[in-house]
Amino acid sequence: MSTESTFAQPIQATQQHSKPLALRDVTVTDAFWHTEQELVRTAVIPFQWNALNDNVPGAAPSYCMHNFKAAAAQNARKSTEGKKFVPPAYTYRGFEAKPEDPANPDPDKFYGFVFQDTDFSKWIEAVGYSLTQHPDAELEATADKAIDIVCAAQLDNGYLDTYYILNGMDRAFHNLRWHHELYCLGHLIEGAIAYYEGTGKDKLLKAAERFADYVGEYFGPNPGQCKGYPGHEIAEMALARLADLTGEKKYLDLAKFFIDERGTEPNYFRYEGERDKEDGYTDTNWEFDYDYTQAGEPVRDQKEAIGHAVRAGYLYSGMAAVAKLTDDPSLVKACETLWRNIVDKKLYITGGIGGTVDGEAFSYDYDLPNDSAYSESCAAISLAFFARRMLEIAPVAEYADVMEQALYNTTLAGMALDGKSFFYVNPLEVNPYACHKDSRVRHVKPVRQKWFGCACCPPNIARIVESVQEYAYTVSNDASTLFTHLYMGGVARATLGGAEVTLDVAANLPWKGDGAATVRLGSPATFTLAFRLPGWAGSVDAAAAAISASGEADGRISREVRDGYVYFTGEWHDGDEVAFDFPMPVRMMKANPMVREDAGRVAFVRGPITFCAEERDNGANLHLLHADVAAILADPSSVKVVPFAFHAGAAGIDEKGQGEVDDVTRDMVRLEVPAWREPVPEGANAESPAFAPLYAEYAPAKREPVTATLIPYFAWANRGENEMTVFLHD
Amino acid sequence: MSTESTFAQPIQATQQHSKPLALRDVTVTDAFWHTEQELVRTAVIPFQWNALNDNVPGAAPSYCMHNFKAAAAQNARKSTEGKKFVPPAYTYRGFEAKPEDPANPDPDKFYGFVFQDTDFSKWIEAVGYSLTQHPDAELEATADKAIDIVCAAQLDNGYLDTYYILNGMDRAFHNLRWHHELYCLGHLIEGAIAYYEGTGKDKLLKAAERFADYVGEYFGPNPGQCKGYPGHEIAEMALARLADLTGEKKYLDLAKFFIDERGTEPNYFRYEGERDKEDGYTDTNWEFDYDYTQAGEPVRDQKEAIGHAVRAGYLYSGMAAVAKLTDDPSLVKACETLWRNIVDKKLYITGGIGGTVDGEAFSYDYDLPNDSAYSESCAAISLAFFARRMLEIAPVAEYADVMEQALYNTTLAGMALDGKSFFYVNPLEVNPYACHKDSRVRHVKPVRQKWFGCACCPPNIARIVESVQEYAYTVSNDASTLFTHLYMGGVARATLGGAEVTLDVAANLPWKGDGAATVRLGSPATFTLAFRLPGWAGSVDAAAAAISASGEADGRISREVRDGYVYFTGEWHDGDEVAFDFPMPVRMMKANPMVREDAGRVAFVRGPITFCAEERDNGANLHLLHADVAAILADPSSVKVVPFAFHAGAAGIDEKGQGEVDDVTRDMVRLEVPAWREPVPEGANAESPAFAPLYAEYAPAKREPVTATLIPYFAWANRGENEMTVFLHD
Repeated sequence: MSTESTFAQPIQATQQHSKPLALRDVTVTDAFWHTEQELVRTAVIPFQWNALNDNVPGAAPSYCMHNFKAAAAQNARKSTEGKKFVPPAYTYRGFEAKPEDPANPDPDKFYGFVFQDTDFSKWIEAVGYSLTQHPDAELEATADKAIDIVCAAQLDNGYLDTYYILNGMDRAFHNLRWHHELYCLGHLIEGAIAYYEGTGKDKLLKAAERFADYVGEYFGPNPGQCKGYPGHEIAEMALARLADLTGEKKYLDLAKFFIDERGTEPNYFRYEGERDKEDGYTDTNWEFDYDYTQAGEPVRDQKEAIGHAVRAGYLYSGMAAVAKLTDDPSLVKACETLWRNIVDKKLYITGGIGGTVDGEAFSYDYDLPNDSAYSESCAAISLAFFARRMLEIAPVAEYADVMEQALYNTTLAGMALDGKSFFYVNPLEVNPYACHKDSRVRHVKPVRQKWFGCACCPPNIARIVESVQEYAYTVSNDASTLFTHLYMGGVARATLGGAEVTLDVAANLPWKGDGAATVRLGSPATFTLAFRLPGWAGSVDAAAAAISASGEADGRISREVRDGYVYFTGEWHDGDEVAFDFPMPVRMMKANPMVREDAGRVAFVRGPITFCAEERDNGANLHLLHADVAAILADPSSVKVVPFAFHAGAAGIDEKGQGEVDDVTRDMVRLEVPAWREPVPEGANAESPAFAPLYAEYAPAKREPVTATLIPYFAWANRGENEMTVFLHD
Repeated sequence: MSTESTFAQPIQATQQHSKPLALRDVTVTDAFWHTEQELVRTAVIPFQWNALNDNVPGAAPSYCMHNFKAAAAQNARKSTEGKKFVPPAYTYRGFEAKPEDPANPDPDKFYGFVFQDTDFSKWIEAVGYSLTQHPDAELEATADKAIDIVCAAQLDNGYLDTYYILNGMDRAFHNLRWHHELYCLGHLIEGAIAYYEGTGKDKLLKAAERFADYVGEYFGPNPGQCKGYPGHEIAEMALARLADLTGEKKYLDLAKFFIDERGTEPNYFRYEGERDKEDGYTDTNWEFDYDYTQAGEPVRDQKEAIGHAVRAGYLYSGMAAVAKLTDDPSLVKACETLWRNIVDKKLYITGGIGGTVDGEAFSYDYDLPNDSAYSESCAAISLAFFARRMLEIAPVAEYADVMEQALYNTTLAGMALDGKSFFYVNPLEVNPYACHKDSRVRHVKPVRQKWFGCACCPPNIARIVESVQEYAYTVSNDASTLFTHLYMGGVARATLGGAEVTLDVAANLPWKGDGAATVRLGSPATFTLAFRLPGWAGSVDAAAAAISASGEADGRISREVRDGYVYFTGEWHDGDEVAFDFPMPVRMMKANPMVREDAGRVAFVRGPITFCAEERDNGANLHLLHADVAAILADPSSVKVVPFAFHAGAAGIDEKGQGEVDDVTRDMVRLEVPAWREPVPEGANAESPAFAPLYAEYAPAKREPVTATLIPYFAWANRGENEMTVFLHD
């Protein structure tokens, strides 16, 4: 094996702007992603709707629709004006409001988190995407009714955040550092666009535009305008998308303002904190950490990915989107710098980011603990957002490699195989006993949970899975080139070189590297089809040798390899085929030696899939399981790739009843790896006294040869509570 | 090398009760301990006195003597009676009271922690011990004056805790679970006994007895007596000691009551919490965890060492003391069970206990993290207390082995080589960068601190160092046998077989295993001298072969080896000598495979000393330093033992000015260990972009041969802030 990186080395890419195909122009039919999308459509979206209507028995109420209804009723009574702000009685974590009597919430009061409105926005976003692929009149009617309620809650001036509408508008936009009005705006825009794209209906889109217009007047560089910006980013990327959809430059200007203003002096958040202190006015008066929200310095000066990982990922996505749309080299450079820092020093091999629970944040360089990882599902999703926007700036395979890792591993691991329970935190190593006993890993759950009060991850997974097609293809701004970034079976339609082109793709990813894209078009036309050469194929040369276009032989189609993409250019005919069979070797990986937590350990990846060992297959005490690295180096084929039917089901649920998974079967691939085990010393368990001393003079460990069974990381924790590890000892 | 344990295997010991020699009957003159004791006498004791009088510039005031003076003044005014309890305004951690204006504390108010009185008690204890060895009229006069103040604070009924005297006596003994009146009693007794032993003055002792008498009437098994017991243990061991000194059975009965009652149903702490809830009365109303204070079940049912490690160590010491004095087999058995759990599953190789910051507590079995260890100095000291009391029940070498490890390693590591700064937490691995950045190890300080508000560790180190002789020798209850548990140069006097015997000991511990004990006595007498065969000497046989008595050759003195001790019995003559030269091999140790954190790692010990690698000697990134285990196994002599002069001094102090150490030089021994380093990848540091990828296909690590320099663990962090590790990768 070579010692080539998983990800390509940094490349000074030629910029070639592109944008995703509209969702309605792409379908996904392959077994892998179709199954995931159906899971979201049939299990998650209905569950979400119940959740945001407080109809999930046993789950914490969301109060999302309750709040919209309360605000709508208040609007109808014209009783919003003049209402002086009184913060709700927070009863949880200092910023979640709950009714005194849970059975009888006051119909006029706000409950839940300050960002509770986004439960609706995330749901409607997933609904919108789903409807592009799978029309559903009943679901659409439900959505339309919900939209009516939400729109009725909007103030005449366009403002739309039920927290302040219900608690008092005089303090709106007065606590940007901790409250989430601009975050609510961002999600509302994303949801409204998705629903518009899915249905063509623009009622919610118009509401979102009106809120954006109100915000655009309130905030800005002119005298009298507020110089603040979001405490939790997402508005930046949403506004850029809105600008792109509507052609309205004002939305792009607002996004750019938020980005340019962020972290500049005098620091707005510091001003806000000092003003509140002077006023004696505090709502959520926690100590503020500028780094937590990436506001410590101007974004173009930021060299290191820091703070809350989801906030960071959303900010960087917004920066990349604005950089592309404004053609701003200094902002592109800032994005590239932050990207490099993540990919070179802060990325889990599962595509996750955020090493520490402390602020749900990026830890310091090379600090990637396995057992106390945070690696929030939403953070991996935000990394995919960022990666795709970097791809839109410049097609460089590394972006797609990382995006693919984030999607296939941590993102999917966030959801059980029955679509009914979810991880917020995605550790790379779990000892359930420690999770129950030990405050250092108390944030790590060994089984997925049904729902969260702070329900960001399940709907985030839903919306990215339902729109995964957007990550597969982009078309260049000059409509000359269609890029295939991810290989998934289905159909993509685009106008290329003036012709209506359909790409009919068959692919066996992620289990096999083969497939073909058939070109359908009316009459011959000249354009470029560019295909990513996956980093996991071993080398650029190996990957390039494994893909060919049917017109290449006769010189009609030329090829060029650049930045990890192969560009096929020439006159395409109907029926032309690009066939590929990328090598998909099992790759035994080690981390950079600077990653202390991975010293002496190896992980196994194959194609886009990162594998892990579970107790269910390998017995307890996984820290005693060693990959036989010498044997594997001597004969890489000693690692067996075994297609099999994975059976999920609740072998064990925890004391809170979490961890139940329906009996479902999924075809996947497991690895059988030459390994050895150090035997568990006699008597070394909690029930019996130990006979083996705690410390003894060193002798090489006894080796019991075994075969380690590794399953895809995304499938872990579907068979009850058990130990898991991605990295094995070497 | 053999694979023998550091510590002997469990032995069903023949009980042979013994007790320590009085401190005035033992002197320590060897270079090692004499230096430590002089450090405490000349640096720590004067510093402590200033600290408890709030005279240390830059340090948080203790308010200890302030409180005693305030209580004394209140007593003089007869204004204590009828004062209704009002808790002080807590300003720190929920239970430390501070004056609003630090420059002007109210002379009538209580400040500090609820246990602040013990600052005095711990100081007077160290003073008492010091005066036995080194009379000092000025110090004694200072102490007498302090004692006058303390005694003036005592109420007429004997009660003596300034927290309730000043805040209102009606709530005395009403919050046993969180407040520390009985802890204050325990420390007062310990201090009073030490001062009595050091000076013969009994004013403080009488005050302690009066407080104990008051407590003995308040608590007990009879109707109308309170069924509570200490929330923070120590009174149990102190009362047992008081009973032993005074011959008063009532004190032993009280200690036994506290032990027998602990954790029984109905649980007293639960009753207290429910009563307070009903009353609406809460002072410190934290959630209570029964395990935290070892009150979840009766002590004889407890199989696992749990909860706050210092509390646990003090409880177990009290249990052992009471078990011996009451000859209670069920209590001995409980002690043995808890001892085994600690030694087999919860003990650091540095003699430290307490794996988790969460409650400063024992973690679960085999959870011994190196970098996030708590391993409080006081906890190691409490383990030494427990070990010595187990030795007093039955002379088994394992107890002494563990006691020695705790004393020579974690206890001494708690204090800088200049005696001026202290560790509360004693990690086995430190990356200072992480300590500053990472909340998971924020409790770990990379340099020692000057003083703590909650100042338990510095005075605890002071009192055990000043009384270390008490750990070296015990004499059997029938005065037939003198046990030498620890080897330290000096003189021990005892009455044995009716004769006044002096043992004149020369020893080169801990750097060399040799020495001799010369017997001085008037006329020949028959008795037994028993010497511990140290676990670190390799094997019992090897150690036994390395010690001999001069009367053995002619059959005048017989030998028997039992439970890790050699017993020399016969007619001793003046000038007889017991000579020893115990092997002191370097031992490369590995932890039990169940210790996940030590998988693939080795540590080096020699004699009682555990070694560690510091960045100062080995460069940064100690996780890349590997012991060359194959080379060492092939040739154990490849590890060099090098006597040298260690230079301490402030090479670097942290941003708070902590970490300064005077330039002092101490003779010690270092190890030079065959090792190799994995090179730091090019560019992999915080300042430059990384060129080495974060993940790459596995290849065996590059090996740069180096020599690792290991210094004694107790000497770490005396040359500025730097990385340290006890365990090296193998």
